[in-house]
Amino acid sequence: MADSQSAHLSASKDAVTLAANHITPMSRELRHLKTLDEARKILWEALPARVREGRFGVRPVEIAEALGLVLDEEIPSPTDLPPFDRSLMDGYALRAQDTFGASEGLPAYLKLVGEVQMGDTPAFALSHNQAARIATGGMLPEGADAVVMVEYTQPWGDDSIEVLRPVAPGDHVVRRADDVREGQAILPAGHRLRPQDISALAGLGVTTVPVRLPRVAVLSTGPEIVPHTDPVSPGKIRDMNGPALRAAIRSLGAEPLNLGLVTDEEEPLRDALRRGLAEADIVLASGGTSVGAADLMPDIISSLGTPGVLVHGVAVKPGKPVVIGLVDETPIFGLPGHPTSCLLIFRELVAPLLRAAGGARAARPRPVRALLSRNYPSQAGREEFVPVRLEEREGEWHATPLLGPSALISTLVKADGLVCIPAEAEGLYAGDSVDVEPLE
Amino acid sequence: MADSQSAHLSASKDAVTLAANHITPMSRELRHLKTLDEARKILWEALPARVREGRFGVRPVEIAEALGLVLDEEIPSPTDLPPFDRSLMDGYALRAQDTFGASEGLPAYLKLVGEVQMGDTPAFALSHNQAARIATGGMLPEGADAVVMVEYTQPWGDDSIEVLRPVAPGDHVVRRADDVREGQAILPAGHRLRPQDISALAGLGVTTVPVRLPRVAVLSTGPEIVPHTDPVSPGKIRDMNGPALRAAIRSLGAEPLNLGLVTDEEEPLRDALRRGLAEADIVLASGGTSVGAADLMPDIISSLGTPGVLVHGVAVKPGKPVVIGLVDETPIFGLPGHPTSCLLIFRELVAPLLRAAGGARAARPRPVRALLSRNYPSQAGREEFVPVRLEEREGEWHATPLLGPSALISTLVKADGLVCIPAEAEGLYAGDSVDVEPLE
Repeated sequence: MADSQSAHLSASKDAVTLAANHITPMSRELRHLKTLDEARKILWEALPARVREGRFGVRPVEIAEALGLVLDEEIPSPTDLPPFDRSLMDGYALRAQDTFGASEGLPAYLKLVGEVQMGDTPAFALSHNQAARIATGGMLPEGADAVVMVEYTQPWGDDSIEVLRPVAPGDHVVRRADDVREGQAILPAGHRLRPQDISALAGLGVTTVPVRLPRVAVLSTGPEIVPHTDPVSPGKIRDMNGPALRAAIRSLGAEPLNLGLVTDEEEPLRDALRRGLAEADIVLASGGTSVGAADLMPDIISSLGTPGVLVHGVAVKPGKPVVIGLVDETPIFGLPGHPTSCLLIFRELVAPLLRAAGGARAARPRPVRALLSRNYPSQAGREEFVPVRLEEREGEWHATPLLGPSALISTLVKADGLVCIPAEAEGLYAGDSVDVEPLE
Repeated sequence: MADSQSAHLSASKDAVTLAANHITPMSRELRHLKTLDEARKILWEALPARVREGRFGVRPVEIAEALGLVLDEEIPSPTDLPPFDRSLMDGYALRAQDTFGASEGLPAYLKLVGEVQMGDTPAFALSHNQAARIATGGMLPEGADAVVMVEYTQPWGDDSIEVLRPVAPGDHVVRRADDVREGQAILPAGHRLRPQDISALAGLGVTTVPVRLPRVAVLSTGPEIVPHTDPVSPGKIRDMNGPALRAAIRSLGAEPLNLGLVTDEEEPLRDALRRGLAEADIVLASGGTSVGAADLMPDIISSLGTPGVLVHGVAVKPGKPVVIGLVDETPIFGLPGHPTSCLLIFRELVAPLLRAAGGARAARPRPVRALLSRNYPSQAGREEFVPVRLEEREGEWHATPLLGPSALISTLVKADGLVCIPAEAEGLYAGDSVDVEPLE
């Protein structure tokens, strides 16, 4: 019975007429369901603090792969940067005090005692009134404390130069550790890595960093499902939720673990979920909305650890057949099999966990304020997400509800955003001002 | 000479005093340089139309990897979705006309002739006054055109049911091709793929799609550079630009091709650039700012194809030593070796090409309007990008210029954004309203 209700809720062929025709049986059922907010609250309170605060899924990641991810720990510099005094230009390394008072009329005369190319370690040191030709990026020889630009010098004899103006200590030099000192915190915990941070880490020789990159296991169940890469025989349907969820997980800066297709019989399903719990930080199973499987998921989840099932069924359209569980600190979700419901419930219940981990490359998109362009009836007692098209006309956004069957993924493909109708409302009216959450 | 200037511009130890002290030699040099806008315009006009319009770097990508990328072609559906008439709930498949006029007082009596589970192909057809038990997602048997919910039926004898209300044709059924019809355009060219699009493509059996995923070759040159994963000996510096550029490329939805470190001698550099041109859509070489290499890059680029070098040197701080070329329709950039300059020039000149390809997962971040919290002098004649810290106080954003040496990556690591001082300005004043481009 639960299942036919769920199919009705999540897949009504014509939302407008059905909402009017079939209020009685749905209302009976809805009384036992949680709202989305209640479900989120129950889950949130049951989560261990580290998950709630986003400190989970921590693993070492190579820095060139870590852009957009969040550091779990402060990173102290393992070394000085630069690791030696370095010239900022082509010129002559010297001791600044030897040039004090120099001018074009009374230059300082310095003897050339060597040359430093980039990448060289100078094999000599500078004494009083000595200089060495040095390239940009070159390592200052011992004794030198500044560089004079070629423009302010003139050759003098075969092995000396005239310096035509005074040079201050440190001129055109980056001193050892000027950029970062060994032990200094280069980046704080909780920082989201940007290209310049990757640059600094590379310069310091930090090759991997501990970032929050939650691994999310994804499996699809249902006897009618075949891999999306396979041909379909009559009666079968290609797996849509697996690829869509894996992509959505990746877009939030997390890492999908593909558990593939699992028949919704007890043993294979339990084995797959157990593998997911062992290898991932969050486990998602979509489908299994047939009567048997719908009963199976909660039992299996509760058999795998404590506290087990937290929520079974959420009063939202599309999307009702949802199981939320927690197995020994790992969140586990039974998502609806309908592709549209599956993605919407993922957005509402799973995505916030991944955003908390900071793995999200982008914050939740900001809602767009728009005027509704036609009436849209909705059944009171459950929230409803309505796919809409957005159009800008004369500087204002207009949202047009897409009236196609909500079970059809093509409706969501045509949509630019979603409008949420609160549970207490019986619909929205043309001209209402609504918040549209962009579907990006 | 060009090189010492470049080092001066891009790496001045103290921007404030140097800008005042050394105007003469820089101004001489700056007269020959392009502005950023001029450089962009020269490049843009030389690009082939397909690159300018972003239609490049097209390759087939597995759909679960294609989220956020842009389709280069309209995708027609290879099949009907669903591929058969499908029940939306658990109930009985039947012929609607057999139930017309049915009521609790005068039910319709239908004979059960079979059962359809999800994934089954029914081996029977329905005739007049026959029904078949059917599961959600099950394939309708031939002859059936609707499903009645279990709630509106009662068993009657061993092999029949009573139907207590009339059912309309199509009730609780998704008909073959209701979602998508074979040959119908499921997604248009230029569309950026979202999770629901991946879902639809999977359902249709489209396993790979032609998307714009430009490949960008990255190499670093300089005799003082070692791989960032290696220990450094005195005089050497770890490669920072390679990892940073590869991360920045990835963040824009493009694919880096790592050409590693190349000495800035003519033959190895030419070979590496040639490989980049053969395998990538854009080629980036950072470093080679020593006098010899600075002269080498333009010569090599021009020797590799036409039109060769377009721009050599840009009047911007930090960042001047830039070579922009086009070799047989492939853009090639010689970027500054200084990590800060390298990233800024990438942002200004290379990132727009990748955004044009639509590969960007996000548009260029919107500037934040802020009040400058202290004076900042700048030399007229070149644009300057000033790293700033952003703080919100009493509802207003305040931008504080970071006065550290601009060559140091730690300055950029500490920055929240950049303020661009136009070439004609001689600085900014405390209290000025400025646009800060967030460094995200």
